[in-house]
Amino acid sequence: MIQKKRRGQLIVFSGPSGVGKSTVIAELLHERPNTYFSVSYTTRQPRVGEADGVNYNFVTNETFEAMIARGEFLEYAQYVDHYYGTSLRLINEKLDQGVDVFLDIEVQGAAKVREKCPDAVLIFIMPPSFEELSRRLHGRQTDSESVIEGRLQKAREEIQEVGNYDYLVVNDKVFDAAAQISAILTAESCRTKYNLDIMEGV
Amino acid sequence: MIQKKRRGQLIVFSGPSGVGKSTVIAELLHERPNTYFSVSYTTRQPRVGEADGVNYNFVTNETFEAMIARGEFLEYAQYVDHYYGTSLRLINEKLDQGVDVFLDIEVQGAAKVREKCPDAVLIFIMPPSFEELSRRLHGRQTDSESVIEGRLQKAREEIQEVGNYDYLVVNDKVFDAAAQISAILTAESCRTKYNLDIMEGV
Repeated sequence: MIQKKRRGQLIVFSGPSGVGKSTVIAELLHERPNTYFSVSYTTRQPRVGEADGVNYNFVTNETFEAMIARGEFLEYAQYVDHYYGTSLRLINEKLDQGVDVFLDIEVQGAAKVREKCPDAVLIFIMPPSFEELSRRLHGRQTDSESVIEGRLQKAREEIQEVGNYDYLVVNDKVFDAAAQISAILTAESCRTKYNLDIMEGV
Repeated sequence: MIQKKRRGQLIVFSGPSGVGKSTVIAELLHERPNTYFSVSYTTRQPRVGEADGVNYNFVTNETFEAMIARGEFLEYAQYVDHYYGTSLRLINEKLDQGVDVFLDIEVQGAAKVREKCPDAVLIFIMPPSFEELSRRLHGRQTDSESVIEGRLQKAREEIQEVGNYDYLVVNDKVFDAAAQISAILTAESCRTKYNLDIMEGV
């Protein structure tokens, strides 16, 4: 059997603020070889514990708008008065190396990625319940009550868009959610369209 | 979170004679709870080691044709001068109970199932190589050289139909193939379309 180096998969994660996307993604990066998290750009302020270049590339409005002008984004969007964007740089390079690239993008941006990359796999991470989401947001102790209310309202709106996603995973326990997503990545790599080259060797 | 009892998934396996479908399916039935193998009907003779009601329901031509007349088949086809068919009885009952139902069907039958059940998941099991497939067929020591040649020729034809399948899994080691298929079943159960009821509980 001759197997050519397979191109990596572009995996888009969305889900309400506080649902635990970054924890689940960290678990996946730890468990699965050949995976890469593409750090988004944003103009919002870092939260406590967030580091530049790790959680986001934190940039100014001026820098962000210059990047837009230079066509450097796969997608970008405005969300709660801040810019969020995904730079094309590195993503294609990683995919060509056979590395799976993870993106953490809100629903508007995810829809744009789907348009530009029809093969991207879109996964929506759900909280077990709104009560639990509220508890997680309060647990962060970084946001005021009104900010949390805004996030919960936004979550209700985002969840309406779940029909655009390929998969829906409930993050009750991080380990279980990561295992389900890991199964999704394995399954996607078995799709016939990516394996027709196996035929050449048979 | 309110979760309704989810309907089972209909999983169709195809692959050349000798590729090891029944061994892989046995491993999956052992590993995954709530799974059921729907035994096909056939008019061919049992091979050494095959039991009626286990590998196939072995019936006469007359019985098979009476079942066709009564509309009892989800699909049926003729293959190497014998009938093979999938009875609807039990399948829907099992699916309604939330049980995943496995079918082992050749490519013509699989195409008919896809037409009638668009949500069915079609998995094609490939040998690592034709040399290995030939070795496995000879290893059975049940078929003459000319029958084996016929099976290998048929395999080459079947593999041309692989584009109709959702997933392609190489059965090099049974355990690895079963693990990949298990991931596919988990991933399919995470598809958004089957989980929209989660929204009701959030």
